[in-house]
Amino acid sequence: MTDRNIMLTPGPTPLPPQVLEAMSRPLIHHRTETFGALFASVIEDMKWVYRTKGTVLMMTCSGTGAMESAVTNLLSPGDASLICTTGAFGDRFVAIQKAFGLSPEVLPFEWGRAVDADVLRAKLKTLKGLKSVFLQHTDTSTGIVNDLKTLAHVVREESDALVVVDSVSGLACEPLEMDAWGLDAVVTGSQKGLMNAPGLGFAALSERAEKAVAAARLPRFNFDYRLIKESLAQRETPWTPAISIVVGQAAALKLLRAEGLDAVWKRHFALADHARARLKDALGLPFFAKNPANILTGVILPEGVDGNKLLADILREEGISIAGGQMHLKGKIVRLAHMAYISKADVDAGVSALSRRLAKAKV
Amino acid sequence: MTDRNIMLTPGPTPLPPQVLEAMSRPLIHHRTETFGALFASVIEDMKWVYRTKGTVLMMTCSGTGAMESAVTNLLSPGDASLICTTGAFGDRFVAIQKAFGLSPEVLPFEWGRAVDADVLRAKLKTLKGLKSVFLQHTDTSTGIVNDLKTLAHVVREESDALVVVDSVSGLACEPLEMDAWGLDAVVTGSQKGLMNAPGLGFAALSERAEKAVAAARLPRFNFDYRLIKESLAQRETPWTPAISIVVGQAAALKLLRAEGLDAVWKRHFALADHARARLKDALGLPFFAKNPANILTGVILPEGVDGNKLLADILREEGISIAGGQMHLKGKIVRLAHMAYISKADVDAGVSALSRRLAKAKV
Repeated sequence: MTDRNIMLTPGPTPLPPQVLEAMSRPLIHHRTETFGALFASVIEDMKWVYRTKGTVLMMTCSGTGAMESAVTNLLSPGDASLICTTGAFGDRFVAIQKAFGLSPEVLPFEWGRAVDADVLRAKLKTLKGLKSVFLQHTDTSTGIVNDLKTLAHVVREESDALVVVDSVSGLACEPLEMDAWGLDAVVTGSQKGLMNAPGLGFAALSERAEKAVAAARLPRFNFDYRLIKESLAQRETPWTPAISIVVGQAAALKLLRAEGLDAVWKRHFALADHARARLKDALGLPFFAKNPANILTGVILPEGVDGNKLLADILREEGISIAGGQMHLKGKIVRLAHMAYISKADVDAGVSALSRRLAKAKV
Repeated sequence: MTDRNIMLTPGPTPLPPQVLEAMSRPLIHHRTETFGALFASVIEDMKWVYRTKGTVLMMTCSGTGAMESAVTNLLSPGDASLICTTGAFGDRFVAIQKAFGLSPEVLPFEWGRAVDADVLRAKLKTLKGLKSVFLQHTDTSTGIVNDLKTLAHVVREESDALVVVDSVSGLACEPLEMDAWGLDAVVTGSQKGLMNAPGLGFAALSERAEKAVAAARLPRFNFDYRLIKESLAQRETPWTPAISIVVGQAAALKLLRAEGLDAVWKRHFALADHARARLKDALGLPFFAKNPANILTGVILPEGVDGNKLLADILREEGISIAGGQMHLKGKIVRLAHMAYISKADVDAGVSALSRRLAKAKV
């Protein structure tokens, strides 16, 4: 019995040893030249990941904090937004907007399907004075990927709305070209494709988005982009950042830089192909997503199999974490992640464990 | 030349090796029994630190995030508050309240002095329908400690207002008895007396505070105490927490538990005495605070000495971080911290460096 733990979860993802080592170094103070230089390198590297010449801001928070920051920094009371929902994370944008007193239009798609560009276009034609359209890059609850390039193009053709993207689970896994595709605000978290521990959120902003920030009147302080940008000019954050996770992020970004972003995307395509081939061979069960992302594969369990018990058994007895379904899919699907620092060997171990357990469960 | 770095700063503070080791372990997933048990132990240990039987909630954020959470979870639009300011951090409560559309009464005290109980009482007599009084436990910008026991008693005698305390830099350094002193909400951060890396905020709530949370109508989502408390019942957080820092916090709390809280407080009294005796002997300069806390000592520099340059030189050439003055005290004082995991040897090294540099600066 070892205490080895394999994480096949779509965030947090396993940490490279270089990141663990970086986080174990004695803390440095955040108002020093040493930290300032490191922080500036993280911001520069994040622009490289986002493929943007725009502004990148960092916050100490979860992905949800970063999502909230996009809402409160871009919108004012009464602003009309359209939120495309493809699973649990579109619903989260809806919940955030409602918590801040807004009444967004919601365009829901069946779980497992991406946003349909024609349906979006038709909806946009019915809406006037729209300030923003909210989209997921990938939806972790269903394992789909949205065609952001096409969707952003449709939004630009039909409106003046900002294109606001949650790429918490997509960035540095699936292709994303912020400037080339005309995305206005893209938020993410440290614990997925960025191969770091959870605790940092990032927001990338186009010039249009920066104008919106200056005009936005929703209340915010901790996540106020204006204060964060002002401090960034001094290579600082307005409040004490999660220093060790910033140091870990610098180490992880160094790995991504060394590999090259196109190679990182290719690796994800290849690992997704590998995982699906193995899952098909070993399990022979249908996949959940109609528009599958490279980050994870959702597998529909046979009737009568209790997915919660299955995954709890695998975790307890084999030390492998695999995610189950969320909301109405709880117990009905498993979500096997193949993203970030997850290896082919990890995927193989997970598929083997699933296959053995399912064979037992059927007896 | 070594790369050893001594931090004599009032947050972040140096990390015990046990905490660094904990943060360097492979990440565990936050929706597992293993993490749930660890998280529950952190919450239980925090109740022990707060000396409360109330509710303790955890968030992924800086101290400022925890301060904002107290404002948005306890107050509604139009609520009257009194904010006692003794330095930069009282001003931060004012800025947060204003950002959320409130117009608090402000009772300012001269920098370097604690809140005067008689002045507070007189002010309270002039105010009607007050919902809350905001206080600092210790003010890091000036190095003062407030007599929270007496001040909370005065607030209770004169009003029904909640007593809301920022103990970001005081908790686990200076005595604090949340229940015995009748404090309603006390927020803190992980990176000071809690001997952990920055990235976690905590809020402890009395029953009265919990009722206020249920009634509060300021907008919040990421920091919504209702969602956080609901998840806590399942030993979870609503959003992905800064897992490695939670693991570090468990390790740091184990150290505090082993030492005992009274012993921790005594150690801070003794180290503060030691630091002041050494500073007096070696520097012979006046101290800034009239009501000094055990967490740090502010020393007023002689006219003509550039404090910013002095501290930058010490950091660059001797690897010792000492804080300077904030706001109008920039360059005019130095703030030498003697809190958390800072040792007598660290303090001695800092005092020696200051003494040598000041002797040079005078020539």
